[in-house]
Amino acid sequence: MPQNQSIVLASRPQGAATAENFRLESAATPALQDGQVLVRHHYLSLDPYMRGRMNEGKSYAAPQPLGEVMIGGTVGEVLETRSPRFAVGDKVVGMGGWQLYSVVDAEQPGALRKVDTTHVPLSHYLGAVGMPGVTAWYGLVRIIDPQAGQTVVVSAASGAVGSAVGVLAKSRGCRVVGIAGGAEKCTYVVKDLGFDECVDYRAHADALSLSKALKLACPQGIDGYFENVGGMVLDAVMLRMNAFGRIAVCGMIAGYDGQPLPMSYPQMILVQRLKVQGFIVSEHMQDWPAALKELGQLVGSGRFRPRESVAHGLEGAPQAFLGLLKGRNFGKQLVKLV
Amino acid sequence: MPQNQSIVLASRPQGAATAENFRLESAATPALQDGQVLVRHHYLSLDPYMRGRMNEGKSYAAPQPLGEVMIGGTVGEVLETRSPRFAVGDKVVGMGGWQLYSVVDAEQPGALRKVDTTHVPLSHYLGAVGMPGVTAWYGLVRIIDPQAGQTVVVSAASGAVGSAVGVLAKSRGCRVVGIAGGAEKCTYVVKDLGFDECVDYRAHADALSLSKALKLACPQGIDGYFENVGGMVLDAVMLRMNAFGRIAVCGMIAGYDGQPLPMSYPQMILVQRLKVQGFIVSEHMQDWPAALKELGQLVGSGRFRPRESVAHGLEGAPQAFLGLLKGRNFGKQLVKLV
Repeated sequence: MPQNQSIVLASRPQGAATAENFRLESAATPALQDGQVLVRHHYLSLDPYMRGRMNEGKSYAAPQPLGEVMIGGTVGEVLETRSPRFAVGDKVVGMGGWQLYSVVDAEQPGALRKVDTTHVPLSHYLGAVGMPGVTAWYGLVRIIDPQAGQTVVVSAASGAVGSAVGVLAKSRGCRVVGIAGGAEKCTYVVKDLGFDECVDYRAHADALSLSKALKLACPQGIDGYFENVGGMVLDAVMLRMNAFGRIAVCGMIAGYDGQPLPMSYPQMILVQRLKVQGFIVSEHMQDWPAALKELGQLVGSGRFRPRESVAHGLEGAPQAFLGLLKGRNFGKQLVKLV
Repeated sequence: MPQNQSIVLASRPQGAATAENFRLESAATPALQDGQVLVRHHYLSLDPYMRGRMNEGKSYAAPQPLGEVMIGGTVGEVLETRSPRFAVGDKVVGMGGWQLYSVVDAEQPGALRKVDTTHVPLSHYLGAVGMPGVTAWYGLVRIIDPQAGQTVVVSAASGAVGSAVGVLAKSRGCRVVGIAGGAEKCTYVVKDLGFDECVDYRAHADALSLSKALKLACPQGIDGYFENVGGMVLDAVMLRMNAFGRIAVCGMIAGYDGQPLPMSYPQMILVQRLKVQGFIVSEHMQDWPAALKELGQLVGSGRFRPRESVAHGLEGAPQAFLGLLKGRNFGKQLVKLV
């Protein structure tokens, strides 16, 4: 069996996560049991939700156990199989974790999914045509439910989720305004992704200043907001929401290190009769097929060209992940393992 | 024509509202035009929403104009009529404002509604079987949508809206926990209204202390919360919300004077996948008939005995209103005008 390398959670962060919270380990891959397959990972996905799992406190998912392989989505190919459902060479997507190989119980529903790389590059099954894309689809379609002509705003607009929100909303006839950090990301959001406008939150010292910029970018107000960051950005958007606006709360990355993250203007929920709703995409599996179909068509046809930030080698995963939490990535953050 | 007295908005509050913001005026009632009726008000309703109307800022409704009669719900009887839809002596409910008489265009849909006082006392059409009752019904039934066995919490539980929320939720098989200010109100909420428990928020210095008390009162967590106050009470409740909980935002009385009122733990919206939704009952007229029917049956049958705080005489309305904003009322606040 090939030699595996993996990254485990060595300790829980006190405040911001650091490289010392991770540890690289090495071991032989175990022999396969009936029904199992051995997958060689080509790419590991790095996503903000992983930061939440590193904490011990109450969250929507069990904390990542100390000493165990960090959770994470992976794409790769089947190297060995003792399952009739998978053949050697199949390209697959699963939750293989931060490691080079994984042994998967292939009979477990949803554990491993075969994908077609004819029109969609394998790595995109971790991004635009994977969990981040479906996350965008669910929040936009099921919570924001935008109508043609309405204005939709999304934060972290150049990221894997945010970029998909924008493309999906544009295809529904909406005015789409992104919020991102820095001129380079904003240019990409408008020129490459086709958003109508993008506001650079780093150019604003506080929520009121950012809110004024949003007023210019959204002259008709904001009908739907896809929230990835929380804090000052959320405050600024709430001041511009229209009556009966919808806010899909997908992430609040600004608060993942445990610092207080108050919402400054909750009275806007009443004043504008807003609906503010949190969700986790893994709890809505019934929507994945329709979402993946639409996203696959957008990517396969070239109408959606998602950008990727690729780190190389498993040992680079912690630094790439810490950079992601600080917004240093540009598009979907991946680690190439082959 | 009889001599009318009215209370107008003399000035806008700077911070807390005061008696100086109001002015008593006197004038003859005008002669009726075709289609109009003259109503003598028996009771004026005082409600927290009026405080919002006194501000100039952006809100869900146009600000109350300076120098005009304060807006307000009224019940009374028809004194004169030039409308075939109403006869002298009819008991009616409308939006007559803070005055002794009103001239109403009876043909205008919704302007005036005839009510039956056989089983329901006239004053209750301003409370349990009126706007506050329908407000309770809409937030509970349409937003919280509680299932039997779930736990529903309501703040300002002894008030006109809160008491109706509790009775409606009990009749749906829920565990119902109130939050109110002071032991006397809490006793009333449990003994007279039939709530399972009531927590006195005045016994707690901060949200964490109140949250611990709520944990004892809600051992299974909180599935639905009907929000009337905001601030510390909302913070405390959010820490106890169950996954997929619903929060109906009806009022945030703690912030009506314009002070900052941040929500301390918005990340709970994501962690527990909450739905937080604001509403205004006047935008949901299609639900009023069903709500009024259920509320009328609960009151008419004696299963719901709403309490009233009655001030006497129009000149007492400002002080009664200021007391309502400070929680000095006990049950539905009315002003008796006859």
